[in-house]
Amino acid sequence: MRYAVILAGGRGERLWPMSTPSRPKQLLALDGETTLVARTLDRIAPLVRLDESLAMTSESLRETIASELRLVPAERIVGEPVGRNTAPAIALAARILTRSDPDALLVVLPADHVIGGDSEFRETMAIAIEAAEAERALVTIGVRPTRAETEYGYVRVGDSSATEGVLGVRSFHEKPDRATAEEFVRAGEYLWNSGMFVWRGDRFLEEIERHLPDVARALRRVSARPGEPAFRTEVRHYYDAVPSVSVDYGVMEKADSVLVVPARFTWDDVGAWPALSRVWGADGSGNTVRGDALLVDAKGCVVYSEEGTVAVLGMSDVVVARTGDATLVCSKDRARDVRLIVEELKRRGAIKGDR
Amino acid sequence: MRYAVILAGGRGERLWPMSTPSRPKQLLALDGETTLVARTLDRIAPLVRLDESLAMTSESLRETIASELRLVPAERIVGEPVGRNTAPAIALAARILTRSDPDALLVVLPADHVIGGDSEFRETMAIAIEAAEAERALVTIGVRPTRAETEYGYVRVGDSSATEGVLGVRSFHEKPDRATAEEFVRAGEYLWNSGMFVWRGDRFLEEIERHLPDVARALRRVSARPGEPAFRTEVRHYYDAVPSVSVDYGVMEKADSVLVVPARFTWDDVGAWPALSRVWGADGSGNTVRGDALLVDAKGCVVYSEEGTVAVLGMSDVVVARTGDATLVCSKDRARDVRLIVEELKRRGAIKGDR
Repeated sequence: MRYAVILAGGRGERLWPMSTPSRPKQLLALDGETTLVARTLDRIAPLVRLDESLAMTSESLRETIASELRLVPAERIVGEPVGRNTAPAIALAARILTRSDPDALLVVLPADHVIGGDSEFRETMAIAIEAAEAERALVTIGVRPTRAETEYGYVRVGDSSATEGVLGVRSFHEKPDRATAEEFVRAGEYLWNSGMFVWRGDRFLEEIERHLPDVARALRRVSARPGEPAFRTEVRHYYDAVPSVSVDYGVMEKADSVLVVPARFTWDDVGAWPALSRVWGADGSGNTVRGDALLVDAKGCVVYSEEGTVAVLGMSDVVVARTGDATLVCSKDRARDVRLIVEELKRRGAIKGDR
Repeated sequence: MRYAVILAGGRGERLWPMSTPSRPKQLLALDGETTLVARTLDRIAPLVRLDESLAMTSESLRETIASELRLVPAERIVGEPVGRNTAPAIALAARILTRSDPDALLVVLPADHVIGGDSEFRETMAIAIEAAEAERALVTIGVRPTRAETEYGYVRVGDSSATEGVLGVRSFHEKPDRATAEEFVRAGEYLWNSGMFVWRGDRFLEEIERHLPDVARALRRVSARPGEPAFRTEVRHYYDAVPSVSVDYGVMEKADSVLVVPARFTWDDVGAWPALSRVWGADGSGNTVRGDALLVDAKGCVVYSEEGTVAVLGMSDVVVARTGDATLVCSKDRARDVRLIVEELKRRGAIKGDR
C-alpha cells in the first residue's frame, strides 16, 4: 500500500508575523480558504491510503494539525518533542509503516508548499511511485528552476531511467552562491530539489542503517504502534536519541539508486515574504496587497494587514505586515533574515517557542 | 494688558497616524506628560493675563482644547466652524480683546511647537513685548536656521531697532528652493519665521483694514463678547465671510513697521515625522524609537508604536508608526506627503474630517 507522510513541523519563522510558532505556515490559508496542510493531504488523497497515513509535527501543534487532517486518525499525527530535521522524522514514519505493511510505499510531502495543478501533481507522483516500486529507488521530485535561487538545493540530472519520465541523479548541490545558481539555471540540467520524496519504507530504512546508524539504533527501540499506550514515550526517547539531520544531507547525497522526476506542476515553497508576490500575484507597479492597505508611490512591495489600515508612501521593495500584535517592516532582500527577529523576540519572551 | 492668543487649529495630518483629526499635534504629549497646547500656555503664563486670554481652534476640538487650558475660561476657547488660516483667526482675537481693552497687547503662539528653554523663551517674549508697545510695531520671533529647510518662511533682518535685541525686517521669503535655502543659511542674515507674533490689537487691526478689507468688514459685525448668547452665531457668520489667508502672506509681507526678535530658545515646529528625531533624540545608528520596537540593521529610522511590537529589519531612513488602527511606512524624504494619505483616507470615509 501507499501512504502519505506529511511533514508538518514548520516553525513559522520566515513569514512572521503572519506566521508564528503557534500558527506556522502550514496552518495558513494563503488562498483565503484552506490551510496549506489540509490542501497537501487533499491533493495526494486519491493516491494513498488516508486512514493509515501519517503526519509528523511538533508536540504543541499536534491537535491543531489533527483538526486540519480529519481523515487521518488523530493518533497518527505524531508530535515531535524536539525538532530533529527531516531524516529522523521520515525514518520514524518508515519504521511505523513497514511494521504493519512490509511493502509500505511512502509519499513524503512537506505541508507548507504551494502547488499549482492538482492533476499534474498526481501525474508526477504516479510516475514517482512507479519508479520507487519497480526500481526500488529513492525518488525525489525536481522542479525546473525559474530563477537563480540561492536558498534551494539543486539536483543535477543524469540519463533516463528504466521508468518513463524518470531521470538518474548525478549530484546534489545545497544552496549555491549566486554565480553558481545562475550557471545551474543556464546549464539546463539542474532541477530544484523540492523536498518531496517517494520510496519504499524498507529501502529507506536500508539507507538509514548504512548512513545514519544512530538513527537506526534509536529506531529499533520504537515498537509500539500509534495509539498504543507506550507509543508516545517511545517517540520521546527516540527524539532524545537522534541527531538533527536533513534527509538531503544525511541520506540522499550518499544513497544508491536515487532518481528524480521532473515536476509537471508549478511549485513554490513560500520560503520568505517576497514569495507571496508569486503566490498572490502583483499589480502593475509590482505591489502585492492583502488586507486594508493604501499605497502611494510604492513599487515592488508586499503589504499585508490583518488589522487596521496600512499606508505605504514612497517606498520600493519592502515587506510590510501587520497582525493583531506585531508589525514587520523589512527590505525584500533581507526577508530571509526575519528569523533573526523571531529569535530575538523568543529570547525576550515576547513570543513562545514551538515545541 | 497682555493676552495670549493660542492658535490651536492644527489638523493633525503631518504626524498621522500618531496625530489624527481628533487628536492633532497640539493634543499630543510628545514628552510623555503634557500636551503641546498646555505647555504653550504654561510657558507664556507669567507674562499674560490668563483669564482673558484666547485660544482659537476648530469647533470639533473646542471642548478637548478647553480641558487642556483650564486657566482660560471655556467661553474664550473659540471654535472655528471652518479653517481660514491664521489671519482671520488673529484678527478675530484682536477684535475681541480690543473691545474690552483698547490697549490690548497680543502674544500670538501656535499651540504645536516644541520649545526648549522656558526662561529664554520669556526673555525673548519680554523683548518683543517691549518693542510692540514702545514702537507700536508688528513683532515676529525669528529663529536662527540650523539647516537649509525648504518648508519654512525666512525673514531677512535689517538694522537694529530702537529697542535693544530687536532688528528691522528687510523682506520675507516663503518656502525657498533648496539652493536658495542653503544660500540663506550661509548668508547669516536670515531667520526662520517662527509663526509667533507680538503686537497691539489696534495696530494689527489697522493693517487688516489696509490689506485685508474683506476681513475687516466681516469683523465689524462681531460685537458680542465670548460667552454672550450671540457670540457663536456671529463667529459662524464671520468665518463664512472671510477668505482663507495666512498672516504672513496677508499682513506681514505688506505691513509697515515690522520688527523681528531673534529667539534665545530652541524651537521646532515638528512639521513632519523626521522632526521627532530632533525632539526625541536618536541613538548611535541615528534611530529614534518610542514604544515597543525591535530594530535589526536599521539606520536613521523613526519608529513609533502605540500597540504591539514593531520590527524593522534592514531599512534606512524610514518612518514606521503604528497606532491602534493604522500603520504608516514612509521614506523620510516623503514624510511631508503623509497628508496625501490622510486626504485619501478622508475621501474613503476611513477617518473623519476636522471641523
